[in-house]
Amino acid sequence: MRFSGLSAFPLTPMNESGIQEQVFTQLIDRLTKARVDSIGVLGSTGSYPYLTRHERAQVTQLALRHACGIPVMVGIGALRTRDVLDLAEDAQKAGANAVMLAPVSYQTLTDQEVYGLYETVSTSLSIPLCVYDNPATTHFSFSDELFSQIAQLPQVKSIKMSPLTGDHTSAKNRVDNLRKLLPAHVSIGVSGDWGGLTGLKAGCDIWYSAIGGLFPETILGITRDVQMGEYDLAEQFANDLIPIWELFRRHGSIRVIATAAEILGVTDHFPLPHPLRPLGEEDRFLLKAILQELELS
Amino acid sequence: MRFSGLSAFPLTPMNESGIQEQVFTQLIDRLTKARVDSIGVLGSTGSYPYLTRHERAQVTQLALRHACGIPVMVGIGALRTRDVLDLAEDAQKAGANAVMLAPVSYQTLTDQEVYGLYETVSTSLSIPLCVYDNPATTHFSFSDELFSQIAQLPQVKSIKMSPLTGDHTSAKNRVDNLRKLLPAHVSIGVSGDWGGLTGLKAGCDIWYSAIGGLFPETILGITRDVQMGEYDLAEQFANDLIPIWELFRRHGSIRVIATAAEILGVTDHFPLPHPLRPLGEEDRFLLKAILQELELS
Repeated sequence: MRFSGLSAFPLTPMNESGIQEQVFTQLIDRLTKARVDSIGVLGSTGSYPYLTRHERAQVTQLALRHACGIPVMVGIGALRTRDVLDLAEDAQKAGANAVMLAPVSYQTLTDQEVYGLYETVSTSLSIPLCVYDNPATTHFSFSDELFSQIAQLPQVKSIKMSPLTGDHTSAKNRVDNLRKLLPAHVSIGVSGDWGGLTGLKAGCDIWYSAIGGLFPETILGITRDVQMGEYDLAEQFANDLIPIWELFRRHGSIRVIATAAEILGVTDHFPLPHPLRPLGEEDRFLLKAILQELELS
Repeated sequence: MRFSGLSAFPLTPMNESGIQEQVFTQLIDRLTKARVDSIGVLGSTGSYPYLTRHERAQVTQLALRHACGIPVMVGIGALRTRDVLDLAEDAQKAGANAVMLAPVSYQTLTDQEVYGLYETVSTSLSIPLCVYDNPATTHFSFSDELFSQIAQLPQVKSIKMSPLTGDHTSAKNRVDNLRKLLPAHVSIGVSGDWGGLTGLKAGCDIWYSAIGGLFPETILGITRDVQMGEYDLAEQFANDLIPIWELFRRHGSIRVIATAAEILGVTDHFPLPHPLRPLGEEDRFLLKAILQELELS
């Protein structure tokens, strides 16, 4: 797969008994209809660490079956190297186009341990690997030096950076500095949807987007505008989304997106695993009003 | 079980294939020989979140079979409420004397979500529950208000506080304040071994000890000294351990204890799951020298 453009990360809708296959298929259909550049299943928004190995294989197979030729990247993160290797094998056997790995932790990990994890996993792979930095959930932060070392490993093809903060200049410096440390074949991706546009404008190759997993047309539109140099147009659409980023910051993007899916009738209940809970009544009402006004798709 | 005195938390020795039953049994034998007040298996030192449900049942059964009548508490923490309920049922069916639950997180949890987790689990239990606060691994911190609410739930019998910092006065204030908010039947426990003695002197009922899982006689000696009011004697023994706390702070207690087990010949290799790694050569040498000097048991 090419690590550029929009990679959309759908929810994995579920209840306490298991995956809701039909709802998940509908989410994938929204992405293929919009023709996103790639699909990232079992990312953080896809609740990967909450699922069994069997459920993760089920989600992977469903996504691949319904992807209509769009490349599918599969999250293989787990606490234990043993389990990551099993999940990598499952994804490869199912025909995934790439895998994505975050250094999930319980005991705080050292740089050496994280390097060792990527070394072991990458040498076992025959498909591309995306390095996933998400300190808010893994509680591990990559240094640039560590990124640079891991980027030399076989199969490493992209780095999904932790959310960019700050203005255009600081984002551009961040991306430029990282670019110098990476081989030319390793792409740089932005995550944290509120920084998506800033990241693309700063030179990121790909937007790994959670909100794009529910509203692919809207987010693909912004992505294409940037790719064509239509920054003002992109900015205009992106500004509409600011009230949503505010809810993301307060509740975490996954609760907002899951509540939005429920409001839109994509699912008939809050589709995340317990103990996670939906937004309270007041913020749900606010989100509903925002969605009605913006008419995202 | 009575939630007082010394509760010793052994390692779960393993390699990448599974649990090392014989080594684990030897660790339990050390605890029963020393006659600790209770045994806590599958705590953080017992690597609970890295294991499968089957392996956790295996560890629970082994501990109960070899506990010689000493009460056994079993860690049932997991990311997902569904899994916690399964693990609670397994522990109960095996005959555990109590369970211990930490709010393990990937997505950051809200107070409401954590309360909901304890509410669901506690109402499903017929054995005592210890509430386990360990922000360093769960990335959730209990407020006193939340402790107070959870302490009202059925089966809640103890709170394992996050490590105490500061001097005697601040520790005593902390314990006194918490005590006022809890029902009389809920005991308060100290964790983080470097604050163990401070915690007991400040009025904690129980020392939940990781180092006590490897050196039960030494830690039980300190505990009994405090229980008998022999503070000076306790202080004298505890001061010997200061170089070990320094290694704990730098490497995390579990890596130090696992490396110590290897140095002592209890296991023939570093017994933790990958990607975790042992101390480097220099600190291993230092630890070996400390252990030789102190002759802990």
